Amino acid sequence: MTKYVEELIAIIRGNLSREELIDRLFDYHDNDIAEALELLTAEERKRLYSALGAERVAEIFAYLDDGDIYLRELSLKQQAKVISEMDSDDAVDILEEMDDDSKCKILGMLDKEASEDVKLLLSYDEDEIGSYMTTNFILIHNDLTVREAMRELVRQAGENDNISTIYVVDQQEQYYGAIELQDLIIAREHIELEDLISRSYPYVMDHEKISECIEKIKDYAEDSIPVLLEDRSIGGIITAQDIVEVVDDEMGDDYAKLAGLTAEEDLNETTGESIRKRLPWLVILLFLGMVVSAVVGVFESVVAVLPIVMCFQSLILDMAGNVGTQSLAVTIRVLMDENLTTGQKVKLMLKEMKIGFFNGVILAVMALVFLGAYIHLFKGFDLGYSLMISACVGVSLVGAMVVSSLVGTLTPIFFKKVGVDPAVASGPLITTINDLVAIVVYYGLVAVVLIDMFHLA
Amino acid sequence: MTKYVEELIAIIRGNLSREELIDRLFDYHDNDIAEALELLTAEERKRLYSALGAERVAEIFAYLDDGDIYLRELSLKQQAKVISEMDSDDAVDILEEMDDDSKCKILGMLDKEASEDVKLLLSYDEDEIGSYMTTNFILIHNDLTVREAMRELVRQAGENDNISTIYVVDQQEQYYGAIELQDLIIAREHIELEDLISRSYPYVMDHEKISECIEKIKDYAEDSIPVLLEDRSIGGIITAQDIVEVVDDEMGDDYAKLAGLTAEEDLNETTGESIRKRLPWLVILLFLGMVVSAVVGVFESVVAVLPIVMCFQSLILDMAGNVGTQSLAVTIRVLMDENLTTGQKVKLMLKEMKIGFFNGVILAVMALVFLGAYIHLFKGFDLGYSLMISACVGVSLVGAMVVSSLVGTLTPIFFKKVGVDPAVASGPLITTINDLVAIVVYYGLVAVVLIDMFHLA
Repeated sequence: MTKYVEELIAIIRGNLSREELIDRLFDYHDNDIAEALELLTAEERKRLYSALGAERVAEIFAYLDDGDIYLRELSLKQQAKVISEMDSDDAVDILEEMDDDSKCKILGMLDKEASEDVKLLLSYDEDEIGSYMTTNFILIHNDLTVREAMRELVRQAGENDNISTIYVVDQQEQYYGAIELQDLIIAREHIELEDLISRSYPYVMDHEKISECIEKIKDYAEDSIPVLLEDRSIGGIITAQDIVEVVDDEMGDDYAKLAGLTAEEDLNETTGESIRKRLPWLVILLFLGMVVSAVVGVFESVVAVLPIVMCFQSLILDMAGNVGTQSLAVTIRVLMDENLTTGQKVKLMLKEMKIGFFNGVILAVMALVFLGAYIHLFKGFDLGYSLMISACVGVSLVGAMVVSSLVGTLTPIFFKKVGVDPAVASGPLITTINDLVAIVVYYGLVAVVLIDMFHLA
Repeated sequence: MTKYVEELIAIIRGNLSREELIDRLFDYHDNDIAEALELLTAEERKRLYSALGAERVAEIFAYLDDGDIYLRELSLKQQAKVISEMDSDDAVDILEEMDDDSKCKILGMLDKEASEDVKLLLSYDEDEIGSYMTTNFILIHNDLTVREAMRELVRQAGENDNISTIYVVDQQEQYYGAIELQDLIIAREHIELEDLISRSYPYVMDHEKISECIEKIKDYAEDSIPVLLEDRSIGGIITAQDIVEVVDDEMGDDYAKLAGLTAEEDLNETTGESIRKRLPWLVILLFLGMVVSAVVGVFESVVAVLPIVMCFQSLILDMAGNVGTQSLAVTIRVLMDENLTTGQKVKLMLKEMKIGFFNGVILAVMALVFLGAYIHLFKGFDLGYSLMISACVGVSLVGAMVVSSLVGTLTPIFFKKVGVDPAVASGPLITTINDLVAIVVYYGLVAVVLIDMFHLA
């Protein structure tokens, strides 16, 4: 709890008159008040809501993670009023948390402008950039003078917070360009507005997939970027805060998928929800594991005559898995960041295989020496035989690591090509293929070299 | 390549007069010009630099990933001039890419203000928030009138881009508060400046660890947040664009670590660099894998008398690993996002164990049925014996999954407590512990129940 939140709780519980309370709270950041809200009683909150008024409450609720719970403490009419005052993207966030019944009721009670904005945002899929935009921005026509533009800015700034870039449309309401507020502020009166407008200011289309445009948006590093509708009018803007949110969500998602979770989880989820989220992957992995078990079963006779070799199975499988995961993680990030040509993909593949090979050789030499010594000293084999066994482990390590690197690179490229999310589908498939390859190489080598050729049993 | 970049290349290669070139380029976004730069010849770039002038070149270079390479195309004096014109954080980014010799030379040639700012930023560790700040912001004193403040803003806006929040200091140059530009623009003249200043505007201290303050900064969702030095003067600000960068870096780091990479890699890295980055972990994992192998070795005699049981070793180890990774990933994110009380940690631990147990039971039942059928049909064991073997696998699955969940939750909590980055240290340790537990439980169960009790060999 920060200092400000502590102060706020003391003020709210301090039995101040309504006027004094309003006056004292005026100065605090909405985010701090939101945090304080969660620590108050329902009674205290209700008193606070009525003192602050719908507009301020709307701003504060935008900072709450589960605003719908607190919103329910208000009457339906008040709820609609608060949501009407919110930025459209925040309003949608809260509405989507509600049950369908309350959502419909409130949608019907919103004021006209808010209702239109919210319906527009709700019309996008959650992987489209349009679903993140806010309709809170400054819009002017391109035929104004600098003085008129400034006057228009002051008029609109009362209602819109995102003022650092001013968007310009032509007489057909189509996107024309953008003006940096800074340039407008320092512009002399006799300058033409046209000279201030950046005609090549970047934009995105509302239906673009987030994963495809987020890198571009990030690269421009602007305070905001306009989102155009199909008719090239401006539907809304993506602010830098939205970009933080998008980046956070996208990367959190990638992270979760790499760990075999279907979605990011948080502390407040129930055990049941978490079980349901994690079980599907585990079931798939179990059945793939059974396939691997069946293949190991083929080599049962090898292990029966030379049981020592089964000690190193887990080592080889684990290392193949580790290397495959490294290649997978790198490939997924690279695929997400850039659109690769076929040449670049082949280069990436060769590079990953080279890395797998050289790391494999280094590890194989270590395995040869240390495992050879271990087998000789603790398992009572001749030094020659010990080294032959550890050499099999070493050669299998190199083979398994090269194949794992290749599979770890090709699988996500393949899944991306056929339009399946590579982060989701790649993991289990790669583990299985790598396990199978490693087992066949290792036990195959043992069977042919150690048992058939040298009759080591 | 976007439309704008294509246009730019056509313009630059179009044999325009210098004036015409400057005029045409004026309108394009720095990021697009930066992208175009990479596609031009060195000759074309040099012509462009001289047409654009140091200030614009500085702005464009801020968008380049490897600006140091292009910067070298300029004379040392020009390099110093360009870097002097850059935002201090961008200047530091480029300087850090240079070899020490050029860096020192250029540092000595920067103008006084740039030199001070750059030295301040270089003084921070890369995990301190101060290393990300920019010194490009609007600063006024708290004793101005609204009209004076507006005049000061217009004066400073010529040099500083980040104008949407105006920072206020008192007569001792200590942080006093912040004014939203929007409020200043719509303020009537007779209003006191004091009424516009938000005294509780959030801030961070320059030496705060990024991992500890980034959640707070994100939560405030502001265009910028001031960074205070020890004497409570304002050293710089963190802009929303910086926050995007920090979030991207931090999460990319977490992601890479989860995959066993020491750092995020990109497409342009040499094979040698990647090998060096990945090898250390692989060596550690190899030796931990050898420990596991030695423990498997203890059970060699069990496998020798009942070889069928070794088929399912990989299944149990893989499942324990999968569950452990899920718990690990969730715990690391939760630990990063919030400061947990001991009570919450215990709750998280119990929850993860419950998830592990219930998922384990579901999977165990599946394993019992499917593996039992497999052993009976394909390996020629009695149905009773087959079910006994698959029951051992099932019970081991439940045990291994519960322990894995526990270890996957406790290990990162422990590492965070002792001040070691849990994302780095947890992975290999967890895999090893889980492998060991799974092996001991499974082969132990087989030895005691199947072999000693039922003499199944």
